Amino acid sequence: MSRVVILGAGFGGLACAKALANTSVDVLLLDRNNYHLFTPLLYQVASSLLNPSDIAFPVRSALRRAHNVVFRMMEVTEVLPDERVVVTAQSERIAYDWLVLATGARNNFFGQQAVERHAHALNTLPNALELRDHVLRSFERAARAPHDAAHHLTFVIVGGGPTGVEYAGALAELVPLMRRDFGPLRDAPVRIILLEGRDRLLGAFVPPLSAHAARRLEQLGVEVRLNDLLADVSATTATLTSGEEVPLGTLVWAAGVRPAPPGTLPFDRTKGDRVVVGPDLRATGHDRVFAIGDLGACPAAPDQAELPMLSAPAIQTGRYAARAILAAEDGRSIKPFRYTDKGIMAVIGRHAAVAELGPLKLKGFPGWLMWLVVHLYFLIGFRNRFAVLMRWGWNYIFYDRPIRFIVPKS
Amino acid sequence: MSRVVILGAGFGGLACAKALANTSVDVLLLDRNNYHLFTPLLYQVASSLLNPSDIAFPVRSALRRAHNVVFRMMEVTEVLPDERVVVTAQSERIAYDWLVLATGARNNFFGQQAVERHAHALNTLPNALELRDHVLRSFERAARAPHDAAHHLTFVIVGGGPTGVEYAGALAELVPLMRRDFGPLRDAPVRIILLEGRDRLLGAFVPPLSAHAARRLEQLGVEVRLNDLLADVSATTATLTSGEEVPLGTLVWAAGVRPAPPGTLPFDRTKGDRVVVGPDLRATGHDRVFAIGDLGACPAAPDQAELPMLSAPAIQTGRYAARAILAAEDGRSIKPFRYTDKGIMAVIGRHAAVAELGPLKLKGFPGWLMWLVVHLYFLIGFRNRFAVLMRWGWNYIFYDRPIRFIVPKS
Repeated sequence: MSRVVILGAGFGGLACAKALANTSVDVLLLDRNNYHLFTPLLYQVASSLLNPSDIAFPVRSALRRAHNVVFRMMEVTEVLPDERVVVTAQSERIAYDWLVLATGARNNFFGQQAVERHAHALNTLPNALELRDHVLRSFERAARAPHDAAHHLTFVIVGGGPTGVEYAGALAELVPLMRRDFGPLRDAPVRIILLEGRDRLLGAFVPPLSAHAARRLEQLGVEVRLNDLLADVSATTATLTSGEEVPLGTLVWAAGVRPAPPGTLPFDRTKGDRVVVGPDLRATGHDRVFAIGDLGACPAAPDQAELPMLSAPAIQTGRYAARAILAAEDGRSIKPFRYTDKGIMAVIGRHAAVAELGPLKLKGFPGWLMWLVVHLYFLIGFRNRFAVLMRWGWNYIFYDRPIRFIVPKS
Repeated sequence: MSRVVILGAGFGGLACAKALANTSVDVLLLDRNNYHLFTPLLYQVASSLLNPSDIAFPVRSALRRAHNVVFRMMEVTEVLPDERVVVTAQSERIAYDWLVLATGARNNFFGQQAVERHAHALNTLPNALELRDHVLRSFERAARAPHDAAHHLTFVIVGGGPTGVEYAGALAELVPLMRRDFGPLRDAPVRIILLEGRDRLLGAFVPPLSAHAARRLEQLGVEVRLNDLLADVSATTATLTSGEEVPLGTLVWAAGVRPAPPGTLPFDRTKGDRVVVGPDLRATGHDRVFAIGDLGACPAAPDQAELPMLSAPAIQTGRYAARAILAAEDGRSIKPFRYTDKGIMAVIGRHAAVAELGPLKLKGFPGWLMWLVVHLYFLIGFRNRFAVLMRWGWNYIFYDRPIRFIVPKS
């Protein structure tokens, strides 16, 4: 039986493994974590609304009924396509007949080391928890040192894409709850500054929705700065390109990610460091290697532009790779990959979201309802759906964020 | 207005603060964490059943309606009773009229440094999470290196008190779920060894209940070793006092705690390092200082033995200190402290617990039902009760432990 090795159990890798479940190939799925993470809701963990377990799901449980799929928690550090072998961090050599690269993306600080040192990112479970703790700790520090409150309670978020917008909104809605808990901080100045280098938020949406998002954030108290970015950062101050200096309590980086290949990959790469693939998502010159999701420069259709680094393209490219492998095993050929655009959405806060579903543009309450339904639907597992629904309901009714405790690293 | 400073927001300190809520004194409650922890269920966090947020509750929320109580997250490192001042880790001096010492206990490894280096404890939220991650990681390691599985899958728990018994039972019930998830480990040998230095488990209970607990644990596959302890420990081997050597995957320390005073305390101490107090729970020679809970050697009644380090004595001594302070403020005197024994209980697993409530001794299913009701009743806050009930129900019906993912420290 042919052996398919899949690197990464994110949206792409897991979709591929599931599409190969109980077929005629042997599947080995590898990831350095033992869980699949529903990253679109990570900002809710970082803002004390959801528990990690609400959005993280053990990979083994997700694949329990897939008898031909074995999961192992390990990291791959080298790919040797000529030998059809991957090498793990423990120097183990694993042979493959088909390889699916789905290792996703990591933060891109564009070489700004000062930013990298001071910023909190929001793309893994550990860093989301760290950001949550840091934000809660900022309020505790402000309560301890009221003369320094303006410093501790200034939050600068860099990047006006969905992550930045959603986190800014969630943070703004956390502030009144914190004020209620911290008597002496009732009138303390809390600033949330959202920086976007371009002339509007949510560049992937149509301009009216961008404007709606900015307006709603401003209603929540967020200072939206367009055409502005970080010029310099120290431990206590952020200097913006506009020249303004703001005291720095918390810096959140939501301004970009780049592909996270497993070690140095011997494949052609694009300017953005994604693996160059053909219309069938195979790495150029390597018939037995697929690169999908954030890692592959997968075109929406032959000769079209590469897809954005989002969960929907990852899932669709993962399923396509599975179909292509099964077809090749049967000696059949399949049509080139073609992306089905189901739309994009971002939530700003209670009763406010923007959604673009083909010709349909939603905002405000209808957009928010749509967002709720879609996110619940795509969460893995009934238990997680139920837990998230319960917690959203609690938050909705009581305006409360229950998961507000700081767990220091021991 | 007189100012009461309470050190510690555990069972004792929080009970004291609540009993002083909205009275004629000013209360300042200090803790190094911003949450109150329901420690009796900590072993369920360490065994992947509960989320941290199910048993941790923000102190500020618990005291939101107490208008005279201020909480601050800080650590106290020195007590100066002659000046009526406590000094914080930030060198801030805080004056008090009344001081309540409720800083609880920490692990006692009895000077065995090798044990301290290799053991996981189970008395704080960070170490419970670390233990959970370590246990899950052991299965991942065993799956990666089957020849070494016996090593990774041996769990040694030291201490046959409630913590050791409850964790052994919870771990034993986790094993079949892990086997279901880890195909290749279906027949791998998993050993759970519970060591107790005395001749029976649960020394605080009557002997028939101890015997019942041992029998139930053995039915779950736990090897119960009485009159046996650790003689020596290395990274890979535990040597028991009986001479036996066992490979060591995970070592859990549940064999003892000792008082955790805030810095060096200028008060008389017992042999066990608890603060010597009079029948009114005041530190000997210091009328304005109370020592309660695990820290104070509080007698069950005048001239009786000191109370064990458990949550019920902490709560009752905390409430008494509050009453004593209010009485003194009014110029009244109150009767000496007298403990009301409501009983003790420990759970062994599904449908099995032992409970001793005065003359009433329960075991098996009735003991288990009683345990459920009591623990739910004492959990702080409706939301937590509801969340825990949901998760217990899920586990009960589906034999599942959903929170099975490893979060590395970043």
